[in-house]
Amino acid sequence: MTTLIVGNSRTEEMVGDLTTLSPDDLVSGGCGAQRMLWYARDGDILVLPWLPETAYLNYVTALTGTRLATLTLVVPPPGFLGGDILTPDRLADEGFRDELRTVLTTRRIDQVLAVYTDTAIAELATVLDIEPALPGHRFSAQGGDALVNSKAAFRAMAAGTGVSIAPGTVVTRPEQAEAAINALLGQGYPVMVKQEFHGGGFGNEILATTDALRPAGAPQVVVLPDGPAVTDYVTQRWTWLTGGRGHRLVVERYFADSVTIYAEFVITDEEIELLGVGEILMEPVAVGEIVPAQSIDPQVRDRLVVAGRRLCEPIRGLGYRGNLSTDAILTPEGEIVFSETNGRITGSTHLHAVIGARVVGANHRDHRVIMERGGWQAASFTGALEQLTAAGLAYDPATRTGIILTSCHVPADDTVVYCVVAEDLAAVREYQRRLAALLTGVSV
Amino acid sequence: MTTLIVGNSRTEEMVGDLTTLSPDDLVSGGCGAQRMLWYARDGDILVLPWLPETAYLNYVTALTGTRLATLTLVVPPPGFLGGDILTPDRLADEGFRDELRTVLTTRRIDQVLAVYTDTAIAELATVLDIEPALPGHRFSAQGGDALVNSKAAFRAMAAGTGVSIAPGTVVTRPEQAEAAINALLGQGYPVMVKQEFHGGGFGNEILATTDALRPAGAPQVVVLPDGPAVTDYVTQRWTWLTGGRGHRLVVERYFADSVTIYAEFVITDEEIELLGVGEILMEPVAVGEIVPAQSIDPQVRDRLVVAGRRLCEPIRGLGYRGNLSTDAILTPEGEIVFSETNGRITGSTHLHAVIGARVVGANHRDHRVIMERGGWQAASFTGALEQLTAAGLAYDPATRTGIILTSCHVPADDTVVYCVVAEDLAAVREYQRRLAALLTGVSV
Repeated sequence: MTTLIVGNSRTEEMVGDLTTLSPDDLVSGGCGAQRMLWYARDGDILVLPWLPETAYLNYVTALTGTRLATLTLVVPPPGFLGGDILTPDRLADEGFRDELRTVLTTRRIDQVLAVYTDTAIAELATVLDIEPALPGHRFSAQGGDALVNSKAAFRAMAAGTGVSIAPGTVVTRPEQAEAAINALLGQGYPVMVKQEFHGGGFGNEILATTDALRPAGAPQVVVLPDGPAVTDYVTQRWTWLTGGRGHRLVVERYFADSVTIYAEFVITDEEIELLGVGEILMEPVAVGEIVPAQSIDPQVRDRLVVAGRRLCEPIRGLGYRGNLSTDAILTPEGEIVFSETNGRITGSTHLHAVIGARVVGANHRDHRVIMERGGWQAASFTGALEQLTAAGLAYDPATRTGIILTSCHVPADDTVVYCVVAEDLAAVREYQRRLAALLTGVSV
Repeated sequence: MTTLIVGNSRTEEMVGDLTTLSPDDLVSGGCGAQRMLWYARDGDILVLPWLPETAYLNYVTALTGTRLATLTLVVPPPGFLGGDILTPDRLADEGFRDELRTVLTTRRIDQVLAVYTDTAIAELATVLDIEPALPGHRFSAQGGDALVNSKAAFRAMAAGTGVSIAPGTVVTRPEQAEAAINALLGQGYPVMVKQEFHGGGFGNEILATTDALRPAGAPQVVVLPDGPAVTDYVTQRWTWLTGGRGHRLVVERYFADSVTIYAEFVITDEEIELLGVGEILMEPVAVGEIVPAQSIDPQVRDRLVVAGRRLCEPIRGLGYRGNLSTDAILTPEGEIVFSETNGRITGSTHLHAVIGARVVGANHRDHRVIMERGGWQAASFTGALEQLTAAGLAYDPATRTGIILTSCHVPADDTVVYCVVAEDLAAVREYQRRLAALLTGVSV
């Protein structure tokens, strides 16, 4: 079983127009893409935006039990946005494709695993003559994954299948947006506006008549006290709200003080398999997560999984194959309100499919709580790892507890992403306290 | 059983940006909307862009056996584009809504039948408190019908469900369009480019390296002899190709000398019911049609219906309810290649649901061929009708043969649309010859 793994994190359908990403966004996107190394098994081929440092390669493969020397790492030449992320033009480079073809003369690819299966990935599979290795190739080759990641299409599919969504609608014109925003504000509800294609809450804004709200799921609250303020907001923000591309816009009620949860599934020809349930930490946008979700009781979890699976069914009917995260909030009133689906390798997938299933192991994962967080200020990956080890906090395969460094964002913002594995939430919190004591400036 | 019938032909998802329609397009759209009168039964309420002339009202209701006096016709005040078509702002007019509310105090609406169920129709159902009367209301209220009418989404759904489509892809950027066009032209195939949202072939263009092709399904063939010509074409036409709204673009192989056919279905909570099969006459865009299709044999018809039904299934799974036309071509090699789906009352629906089922009648329709064509030059609807009657060509309910005037486009371009009902295709042709002899300037 050989997998062609492609670290194409960011795509236009993940974060919108790539040309609007800042240099820091690009570097950060590339750092996130290196996380695909976690999925590698002996003999796999990885296409990455750039070669991660040796320390990271050694560290990750040691924890997953993969022999680094068996892996083939391929980096295409820089593209129109440089070398930080794997843009489609890089994947289309003929020299790179020839390099892959050469690798493939001695290897049979059984599976293609890309962060996001857009038409660039589908075309790559076609030119390499490995279409059958890419699940749902026919659907993805026609741009189908856009349907599964569109927040606008999501609302229609959820409504159409009877899955609960926030009151609101999907609009295409400024006057419709204004009417929809005014209608919700007029009923006394704050509003969330969502770009059709974006991620992590960065394409969302919360609108309210006063400044009393704490934002979650969007970077900020915009105060719009009256109708004229709404008109001005829609006029001034219209290009941004529509992704600079005439995309559709979601306008829906915002539920304050809610818990953000998800159920992630793997959709195959044969079945819809639950991968896991987790809880996203919003401060005010996604900063980390807890697996399994700790703020919900088993009944809520069951409702989440049942409704999430119901969302998977029409999407499977369309021909999509791959991971699908069905995201929701649990309101203070105990209602589960779905917010979007993401058809891709998400920021959570590795916690379930690798950290839980392979590092901790299938026999033990039910007795562990995993919390991942970013933002640990570190001068280097090696330095952070040494600190962990010296303090006795590093993950120990014998006890199956401790702290794992899941990705390195030092090139972007001098931080690393860490992941605590412990017996329960209290033990996770204890690890966090010890880490905070060790490191000045880490917020816990 | 009372139906609220709404003649909202044209919407943005049918023909693209409404503000780009010419004055003639607007008048023509409004004339087509009057065709909704055919669906009326005793006691129904019709919302129309303007009141059709009395002769038309009398004529249509006489043929359908509906008592005109029992109908309620409502016309909202003009909107931002005037009074020719039912734009969303007209449906939102408060005076109009109050008028409908008054009508509804004495009537219970069992069904809402709109040409196109966009969010404006869904909202109208909500404010009138008749949501359950609109099939698929939840889906339509979130803009879902766009998914069912998008030529881009169609390609993904068809590919994902294993229904045959033309080689090609869906693109979002000019450089992708250029590559896709060059790839097909380079293989020696002409290309059809299709706007995501348009109808009747008017959003399509055929691209070829020579001028030898006869266009069908698009107004024209654009000759692009080489790569630089493709680059220029994409650059100059990009705004038009993306509907002036950043829509997606379909690029696919064009099959010359094909027959355009469709199977139309009605999707309900309970089932997917075949409404009928027909053949579209392209000269070079849709000018008429024949029901049932005459250029295909029973085996082709069966393959069309089986594959069309397979397309309906995922669309039903999404939550869409209503009519769905699954359109295809039969290539000279005998392959059925699907081209799009239209989730709305189509230009064919009345031929099956009214002319066939009610005027001819369920017991006799299997022994009739129906051919509808536009373009009969006429100074007035009454004048055309008198000519038909004087010549003994008018439809005779006793013999269930003859010519019916299905819609009046005199206000738009001094034409009427007629429909021949006869025992077989030869008899239809004979009616056409007699009509041509009667009228100078009618092409048959």
